[in-house]
Amino acid sequence: MTDLRAEVLAAAAAAKATAADLRQRSRFEKDAAVLAIADALKANVDVIVAANAIDVEAAIANGTDPAIVDRLTLNAERIYAIADAAAEVAALPDPIGDLVRGYTLPNGLEIRQVRVPLGVVAMVYEARPNVTVDAAVLSLKSGNAALLRGSASALNTNVKLVEIMQNAIASKNFPKAAITLVPGDSHESVNIVMSARDLVDVIIPRGGAGLIANVVNNSKVPVIETGVGNCHLYVDAAADMDMAVEIAVNSKTHRVSVCNALETLLVHAEIADTFLPKLFEAYKAKGVTIHGNPELKATCEAAGIPFEVATEKDWADEYYSLDIAMAVVPDIDAAIAHIHKWSTGHTEAIVTDSVKMADKFVSAIDSAAVMVNASTRFTDGGEFGFGAEIGISTQKLHARGPMGLQELTSTKYVVVGQGHTRN
Amino acid sequence: MTDLRAEVLAAAAAAKATAADLRQRSRFEKDAAVLAIADALKANVDVIVAANAIDVEAAIANGTDPAIVDRLTLNAERIYAIADAAAEVAALPDPIGDLVRGYTLPNGLEIRQVRVPLGVVAMVYEARPNVTVDAAVLSLKSGNAALLRGSASALNTNVKLVEIMQNAIASKNFPKAAITLVPGDSHESVNIVMSARDLVDVIIPRGGAGLIANVVNNSKVPVIETGVGNCHLYVDAAADMDMAVEIAVNSKTHRVSVCNALETLLVHAEIADTFLPKLFEAYKAKGVTIHGNPELKATCEAAGIPFEVATEKDWADEYYSLDIAMAVVPDIDAAIAHIHKWSTGHTEAIVTDSVKMADKFVSAIDSAAVMVNASTRFTDGGEFGFGAEIGISTQKLHARGPMGLQELTSTKYVVVGQGHTRN
Repeated sequence: MTDLRAEVLAAAAAAKATAADLRQRSRFEKDAAVLAIADALKANVDVIVAANAIDVEAAIANGTDPAIVDRLTLNAERIYAIADAAAEVAALPDPIGDLVRGYTLPNGLEIRQVRVPLGVVAMVYEARPNVTVDAAVLSLKSGNAALLRGSASALNTNVKLVEIMQNAIASKNFPKAAITLVPGDSHESVNIVMSARDLVDVIIPRGGAGLIANVVNNSKVPVIETGVGNCHLYVDAAADMDMAVEIAVNSKTHRVSVCNALETLLVHAEIADTFLPKLFEAYKAKGVTIHGNPELKATCEAAGIPFEVATEKDWADEYYSLDIAMAVVPDIDAAIAHIHKWSTGHTEAIVTDSVKMADKFVSAIDSAAVMVNASTRFTDGGEFGFGAEIGISTQKLHARGPMGLQELTSTKYVVVGQGHTRN
Repeated sequence: MTDLRAEVLAAAAAAKATAADLRQRSRFEKDAAVLAIADALKANVDVIVAANAIDVEAAIANGTDPAIVDRLTLNAERIYAIADAAAEVAALPDPIGDLVRGYTLPNGLEIRQVRVPLGVVAMVYEARPNVTVDAAVLSLKSGNAALLRGSASALNTNVKLVEIMQNAIASKNFPKAAITLVPGDSHESVNIVMSARDLVDVIIPRGGAGLIANVVNNSKVPVIETGVGNCHLYVDAAADMDMAVEIAVNSKTHRVSVCNALETLLVHAEIADTFLPKLFEAYKAKGVTIHGNPELKATCEAAGIPFEVATEKDWADEYYSLDIAMAVVPDIDAAIAHIHKWSTGHTEAIVTDSVKMADKFVSAIDSAAVMVNASTRFTDGGEFGFGAEIGISTQKLHARGPMGLQELTSTKYVVVGQGHTRN
């Protein structure tokens, strides 16, 4: 066993060793620890900024993309915002102990299915150090130990954040290893976490498609796949056109770098002639580029909006930019077929005033979220009222869609008899 | 791509291609297909028995263990029992479309989390051909396509069963590929199914520890781990002794070859002197052998019950026989510590009349089922009132404990607005 392997497994084992303690903590105790974290972050703004400056300087020296440097950077204002978000988690209901199902069998045996923590939640994520605090606080509140593996580029920041959080929870009599940073900054340390099925209960990757694919394909630990969102909007023949323009603009342009942003727009042929000029006027004002079927070229040129002929890559990929793939479709069935072929199962939306078409779309589309007359941007834990979000699951097992505290739990059956035996 | 690989992936793709159809079927349609399967099995008893005879003869010729030959064997009575069990599934509630959560946000957006099928459920299992029918019927009822990979030794039987079921559902206008047998009888075909993440939504292994470990360690498709049960019973100082004897006897001897059978008994030291002679008298009558700490030797000899000194293997493994591992423990904490060390997280039980001790045990033990004053044998979908069981999950993600129809489902969010956009 290499030194790194021994070190990573020891860290995972230390986290696992806290699970039996954590799962028996009351909400009162957990909230006190969460609030202690929020206070400690605010009290240590200067040391966090100093540690972060080392990472930021190294990133700049390495020629890192300015957008990524910006995501990596912490200042007093951002640290206060992170601390305030942590404090808000204390106010959320504690899912642990919730009765999911409860009934008494004819033989008098009482069956109760109750919510319990998962145990050790491993998070593997990229540049943004706020995830370090979010993941730790949500894990703690739901009675889980957090095993955190941030990006190598944020290592100094994450070491300091975890140290501060560990001291904060220790002051409330929680074991420090309830929040554990995975040692090492090489990809090998991620591989070791992914192999530790007996020590880690779930691994949640958050980041780009490459990171997620690596974890999904190589982990022996159960994975919750998050976030890749090739989201579609279908504008039906029966759509309110002003509403359709507003939703198409909001879904595409409100924030382009996120997984619930719109990537492909499908328009019913019957309304194309009247709808597209309105839409292109609005998109032109926002600086959107259209990637579409050749027949869209003339309309785009007439509207003075940039146009490129779409290839398979346009239908398949997320842009994370002010680009959009577009097709005119003969009917709702063609729209559904296109979505079945290209969707990543995150969010698809329809704009229509027809109950029949709305029902057909909702029934046929198999995605984590299906929107009727609403922007794709609403697929979000905060918007759904969960109060916090650990990620958006695009898989069907365990959790699907935005994940809050409840999605960080499992259940167990408690069965109470009076000497019951089986015949 | 090898021929086998192309063939297996084509079968999986055919199953996947039925998913969009299946998830939109009404309960009425699905029940008709399930009942058609039950009728067709009864109408084809002779051809099933003939196909099965080929497998049974081959198994005998290969020197297969008679117990396994027995599990493989189908006769008219067994086929009728399988068909009746299938027909009962039609009477169970359909989980698809159930509203899991529903609420309206302050902005008027309506959020509904509704139950939907998983899509393609792959089952990998061993000798018993009844699983072929069970898995197909439960998948169909829950709107899923079933991709079935039984053991090579049951291939002729399974081919015939699947053919009969496919014709039955086709007569009710269901696509035949909704029930698909994985081609090939080599382990390689299992490996190919495990690699098809884009075609298979979940893989459920049912069988021995080797089969389960292979799937868990090598699958890229999400897995639900089932069944390995190193179950413990702790007899507390405050136990009703007659109840404890009855539960210890029932848990151990009612059926020794199943995952919810008792494997390790822990007895509080304070009551050992009075409890053990009663227990050993009962165990002796049932032919039980004790594997225990050396200090148990004298008591066993006095009771005339076979005794062996326990090794680590005794604490770790399932016997599937009339053997039991036993230790006298100083207190409940020692019992809990022993269970934490050796349990597989299936079922653990306590016999006690103390509310305090029962609560402590229930809170501390992290297993799929925790029994108070009841036999470990009750961890079972049928006993829990689920009407049918696809297996018992010993993992924490998605499903834990006995799995019925509901555990073969996912959810999606349906979000209805009136032109909602995000600010």
